[in-house]
Amino acid sequence: MKFTIQRDQFVQSINHVSKAISSRSTIPVLAGIKIEAYKDGVTLTGSDSDISIESFIPSEVGDEQFVEIEEEGTTVLQARFFAEIVKKLPEATVEIRVNEQNIAQISSGSSVFNINGMNADEYPRLPEIEEENVFQLKTDLLKALIKQTAFAVSTSETRPVLTGIHWSMEDGTLTCTATDSHRLAMSEAKVESEAADLSFTNVVIPGKSLSELSKILDDSEEHIDIVVTNNQILFKAKNLLFFSRLLDGNYPATKNMIPTNQKTMVQLDAKKLLAAIERALLLSDAKNNVVNLKSIDEEHLEITSVTPEVGKVTEDVTSLKFEGEELRIAFNGKNIIDALRVIESSEVAIQFTGAMSPFIMRPADRDYMLHLFSPVRTY
Amino acid sequence: MKFTIQRDQFVQSINHVSKAISSRSTIPVLAGIKIEAYKDGVTLTGSDSDISIESFIPSEVGDEQFVEIEEEGTTVLQARFFAEIVKKLPEATVEIRVNEQNIAQISSGSSVFNINGMNADEYPRLPEIEEENVFQLKTDLLKALIKQTAFAVSTSETRPVLTGIHWSMEDGTLTCTATDSHRLAMSEAKVESEAADLSFTNVVIPGKSLSELSKILDDSEEHIDIVVTNNQILFKAKNLLFFSRLLDGNYPATKNMIPTNQKTMVQLDAKKLLAAIERALLLSDAKNNVVNLKSIDEEHLEITSVTPEVGKVTEDVTSLKFEGEELRIAFNGKNIIDALRVIESSEVAIQFTGAMSPFIMRPADRDYMLHLFSPVRTY
Repeated sequence: MKFTIQRDQFVQSINHVSKAISSRSTIPVLAGIKIEAYKDGVTLTGSDSDISIESFIPSEVGDEQFVEIEEEGTTVLQARFFAEIVKKLPEATVEIRVNEQNIAQISSGSSVFNINGMNADEYPRLPEIEEENVFQLKTDLLKALIKQTAFAVSTSETRPVLTGIHWSMEDGTLTCTATDSHRLAMSEAKVESEAADLSFTNVVIPGKSLSELSKILDDSEEHIDIVVTNNQILFKAKNLLFFSRLLDGNYPATKNMIPTNQKTMVQLDAKKLLAAIERALLLSDAKNNVVNLKSIDEEHLEITSVTPEVGKVTEDVTSLKFEGEELRIAFNGKNIIDALRVIESSEVAIQFTGAMSPFIMRPADRDYMLHLFSPVRTY
Repeated sequence: MKFTIQRDQFVQSINHVSKAISSRSTIPVLAGIKIEAYKDGVTLTGSDSDISIESFIPSEVGDEQFVEIEEEGTTVLQARFFAEIVKKLPEATVEIRVNEQNIAQISSGSSVFNINGMNADEYPRLPEIEEENVFQLKTDLLKALIKQTAFAVSTSETRPVLTGIHWSMEDGTLTCTATDSHRLAMSEAKVESEAADLSFTNVVIPGKSLSELSKILDDSEEHIDIVVTNNQILFKAKNLLFFSRLLDGNYPATKNMIPTNQKTMVQLDAKKLLAAIERALLLSDAKNNVVNLKSIDEEHLEITSVTPEVGKVTEDVTSLKFEGEELRIAFNGKNIIDALRVIESSEVAIQFTGAMSPFIMRPADRDYMLHLFSPVRTY
């Protein structure tokens, strides 16, 4: 194998596939990046067997040449060293040459590295995906759906299915839900019309997979093909394939958890609420982040928290709207902040159904996203 | 005590004095910031008994009012909470009011904090300094001297005196030296003429003190008064006093360590040398950072390193000048990089006196700074 490649493109592709590579892999070859050089370009692959990422650098795009292939071939190089080396090379192009003993010579200007490679035949094959259930999303919408839900997945392995984000499709609407059983985030989007008769449920994608995917994708309006199978999901963007295993197990029926009645509704300025809760958290216990909320009158809410040895904070928050009964409730302030950070509206509406019942927060002007929170008992 | 203060000025002063406060202090009152409000302004003090910092916010500067004092007084407030609270307050001004039970009420707009204070009488007094031995430096020069030496102090407590930077003054020249016994950094500066007859030696300032001082000071040409006593040093800038304890013990006589003869001298491009050693470190052992250097001919040096399981790197570095004998030496590459990062010249000169002897690196165009390195035995 021998080729010369533009370093910037190479570094970007290496960064992308490195996102799939775990330093704790028990399969030695998976600590490497697979490199395949054929006439039409260079393909890099990284995998930790949960996530696999394939990035393609075409030899030419328009008039620009990215790769010059002198001899086709394949190898696998230690990801950690290889990525660092290519990043630090001095010139704009890099030459890679692999001999029959799988020793790779990486050279650029006055710098020459000789690195032990592994046999590419030992590298596991990517999952074979039947492209039966396919739909499309714009990249920026996919990234928004991930951002609005991924933060709410469980970080505990006691119920593994809750570390994933549940996707379901019905009547051309994709619904994404994440919950750690104390709070729930839900976001919906219409998909492109061709997929209107596609429907599925209980597709649970590891939160980590979607977070890594989101880091790789640029904010753009380009479409991504999404292929769903029984145990895998595949995202196909330009020159990029991203495979993730799905999580086993039944995701809880979250629809039943969302209260439909309401005893109190308040509408608030999102930024001011965020700042007030952030200040209240300064004096709440670091473990449970308990913050208290009380309605004073129709125009004022009071947010308080106390650390007995240190002191107390009292915040006055203006209600833009107030409907229903007086209110006194306690909650995990950090969970509310996580949700406020992904709600892009300037005003939020919060619906309460009593001090001991879950409550809902939404953007005041939209109904395609929803956050649900359990209250905290303080007595 | 009751006063209203501009939040931005207050936050800056709190940040400055917080640099002296250790979260592991065994004296409870030192976990706090002392606040003194008198007619002419507010003084904040932080201390960990090694370093003490006093910051003054004058009531008025020119036409601008920073503080409005309604009632004079003193208190001590928990630094960690107080700093976070003031940073997050919503409005441009903050009102502080302390009652007779030492409860402080901190309010700003719709936000009110009540915090338990401590009695300011319990706060230790700052050291009393006799202003006998005083000299002046421009702030930016002081910062440069710290930057050029502080990185080379020892981080190990086996010889505590080596965790400090040695300052000596003779014939109007201040010499700053730091060494961890494997490498040494030395930098000199002429001081203002009035102090020409001031002379001292064995003033050893903790590296940490000077690093913290450097973070607080702005790059400016304003003068700083420096007062040296037997066991303390005091830096007096505008509205800021910075006290540091000096380290006990005799600092080694470093002048004798610096070789005066030379067998080989090379002159190199500093940036290219830095980049080549950074790449060589990718394949050197992470513990000793051993990098090998060999002269090929009068125009080429070769830098190499090897990790047997992974591979080998070979770098070709152009000599801009080469004088003397052939050369083959090994050294800790990270130490050379630390020094190259603080040398601001584009070219460096390195003088070797043999494979087993310490060698010197200096900026090629200046002689007021010097870096000394021990070689590493590789057999």
